[in-house]
Amino acid sequence: MINVDTLIYARWVIPVSPETKTLEYHCLAINDGRIVDLLPSEMAAQKYTAHTVEKLLNHALIPGLINSHTHAPMNLMRGIADDLPLMEWLEQHIWPLEQKWVGEEFVKDGTDLAIAEMLRGGTTCFNDMYFFPEITAHQAIQRGIRASVGLILIDFPSAWAEDSEMYLEKGLALHQSMCQQPLITTAFAPHAPYTVSDEPLKKIRMYADQLNIPIHMHVHETEHEVRQQQQQTNETPLERLNNLGMLDPSFIAVHMTQLSDDEVKAYAKTGAHIVHCPESNLKLASGFCPISMALAAGINVALGTDGAASNNDLDMFGEMRTAALLAKGVTGDASSIPAMTALTMATLNGAKALGIEAETGSLTIGKAADVVAINLDELETLPLYDVVSHIVYACSRQQVTDVWVAGKQLLKQRQLTTLDIVELKTKLLEWQQRLSTFN
Amino acid sequence: MINVDTLIYARWVIPVSPETKTLEYHCLAINDGRIVDLLPSEMAAQKYTAHTVEKLLNHALIPGLINSHTHAPMNLMRGIADDLPLMEWLEQHIWPLEQKWVGEEFVKDGTDLAIAEMLRGGTTCFNDMYFFPEITAHQAIQRGIRASVGLILIDFPSAWAEDSEMYLEKGLALHQSMCQQPLITTAFAPHAPYTVSDEPLKKIRMYADQLNIPIHMHVHETEHEVRQQQQQTNETPLERLNNLGMLDPSFIAVHMTQLSDDEVKAYAKTGAHIVHCPESNLKLASGFCPISMALAAGINVALGTDGAASNNDLDMFGEMRTAALLAKGVTGDASSIPAMTALTMATLNGAKALGIEAETGSLTIGKAADVVAINLDELETLPLYDVVSHIVYACSRQQVTDVWVAGKQLLKQRQLTTLDIVELKTKLLEWQQRLSTFN
Repeated sequence: MINVDTLIYARWVIPVSPETKTLEYHCLAINDGRIVDLLPSEMAAQKYTAHTVEKLLNHALIPGLINSHTHAPMNLMRGIADDLPLMEWLEQHIWPLEQKWVGEEFVKDGTDLAIAEMLRGGTTCFNDMYFFPEITAHQAIQRGIRASVGLILIDFPSAWAEDSEMYLEKGLALHQSMCQQPLITTAFAPHAPYTVSDEPLKKIRMYADQLNIPIHMHVHETEHEVRQQQQQTNETPLERLNNLGMLDPSFIAVHMTQLSDDEVKAYAKTGAHIVHCPESNLKLASGFCPISMALAAGINVALGTDGAASNNDLDMFGEMRTAALLAKGVTGDASSIPAMTALTMATLNGAKALGIEAETGSLTIGKAADVVAINLDELETLPLYDVVSHIVYACSRQQVTDVWVAGKQLLKQRQLTTLDIVELKTKLLEWQQRLSTFN
Repeated sequence: MINVDTLIYARWVIPVSPETKTLEYHCLAINDGRIVDLLPSEMAAQKYTAHTVEKLLNHALIPGLINSHTHAPMNLMRGIADDLPLMEWLEQHIWPLEQKWVGEEFVKDGTDLAIAEMLRGGTTCFNDMYFFPEITAHQAIQRGIRASVGLILIDFPSAWAEDSEMYLEKGLALHQSMCQQPLITTAFAPHAPYTVSDEPLKKIRMYADQLNIPIHMHVHETEHEVRQQQQQTNETPLERLNNLGMLDPSFIAVHMTQLSDDEVKAYAKTGAHIVHCPESNLKLASGFCPISMALAAGINVALGTDGAASNNDLDMFGEMRTAALLAKGVTGDASSIPAMTALTMATLNGAKALGIEAETGSLTIGKAADVVAINLDELETLPLYDVVSHIVYACSRQQVTDVWVAGKQLLKQRQLTTLDIVELKTKLLEWQQRLSTFN
């Protein structure tokens, strides 16, 4: 008998890779934070012993969900301004609130809330873009969740940095300080074409090549953005980014709601990624990202929630479902984005976009044990004919019972193990009072 | 002091009508199943005593949600065939399964599951269309939920009736037998223009006028339906229904995804209603119902889930959210269908469509006490700046804690009071085995 740290026996396992099919009565063996075996339960019982043995006999195990685009601290502004178009929402509500309130405490408490919400909903990794990213990284480490932390850069000053030079400098310093952190990677995060000028983009390109890290940017979010750039430089934002050499497999374009067929084909050739945020795009009436066409063209498409201020949750189950449903509606083809494709977008494709597919994104032997258990023995997911269908179309995030990141259990029978909810709620009420008074 | 049956003290109350604003620290007084008062909590404590007093200090009270279009027994086929277009889904999966399995037991167990799911999600009334409607009515009465039961009619034979004459006869008998049931109303339910011929429609028109009950029908669900009718009779289905005199305030058209501006205007003049089923329309790629335009034209628009086989849940919170988000995306206007409009569609507008707005649809003094309590003290709905925003955009149905129908508590701290879940699950597993073998 081989001794390992943890054995998780489950009714169903969906590895996503190398197999997309649903395995029945399988067991995941975890040691030193990594998946060391995935085998039929009967064989596992004969081969392994473990310090911790979980028997989840009504549950499906899936790879931890990867939220490939969010602004974690914005959870503190959840629902503060709704039913408004993007620029009015940003200029008259979000930016003034941020100018007044964003600082280390705001980012710390907002990130904690976002992490708590994500873990309770089966998300084990998030790709963030916000001010004070060193605080976000610190909280992620404290709570044990995996994160790709954005080295934010924007042309206007904030409480974090005065100018693009200073954003870049602080970003590079953060990257250096995170090199030894097993759960943290970094990505350059120039905000958007309309808020970042050419010079800093060129520097980011150079450093991204040197350091071999991704570049994470909002691109073609609205028609207004595209039109404005065309009026200014006679290029689309994508053309400008391409002319600056930004588009290659390190590049992660978020939103991409404004894309012609030709633009999809051209983008596919660059090897760059798309992060689709369907609920945010709907809520801000930004447009529809043509994900069926993008996937058919060979583009790697991942999923994100965007920040909670424009969603208003960080629910990757909701996002999988909306992505699958919306694609059918927009293409007029009910076979678009079947359930398994949605699940792959929310897991493996996210890992690919963030450049961490060797580490996470599937229940593959050798990868880190980022694992989510879902209890399917609820009236809302009965009867059961197809596990993946239920995960995408019927299940809600409240059915997530247990979550592990790199083998460490962060949610245990729906209780967070690294966050004190009572203490967090007290802080949230304080922020609620401060922000209500100002808005 | 006046003695009443029940007092519910709540942190927030959203009556929907006569007030759309959110009341704080109010109390609902219930006697003999009806709302007898709604007043500030301090005043209630001085004016009323009650046998049962609930103090829900982190909760919002809303009117019970009304699912204005569903096929309750189809819950047994949840997830059995996904990612397929409407006609293939119907003809190759759903109809053969129904032919093999639909009978009294199927309808009984499927309805029980649907009722359990709806009550757990804050739905207190449903408008149904299925075979064996007398069984659906019986289960609704047993479980204490309000229902509008469809007197189904379709041109082809089923286990329930051989021909349109027999459907009509059995429907009329059911209507008669339900006259004295306080929670049950009936509606004629001719399936769709493409499955019901003129003669039975004319009879339904006549009886609907005599009996003063609504007519509930799938209309303009897909482009294929419209095109086919045009090829056959040179009319659109709506034109045909109008020529048959069907369109008036008794008429409830479900789906309506294929509508020109002129058709919306013409439909508005008839006083007939629309039931919007956004998730089903997306999943089957049927098209988009132009609800913003319809509401602006003065049409009463309600919300429905459709059956669980094409959704795959009966979650009116999800439906409110999808309706609000999708309307913004489709119109390109982020101010379309604000949160309060979505909540009104899911409550009062449903009651209007079903002709029961004197009885339910809002927390109005004199109406039946159909009430839902939502616990907003969860991380997913914190901080809180706007209660209605959170109910529509952030809350999930699992935050529903308590549900009353006509003053009787059917969900108590998330436990169903009139359904045995363990027994129900046993039956669901039996159906799962039967249907799996066949599919």
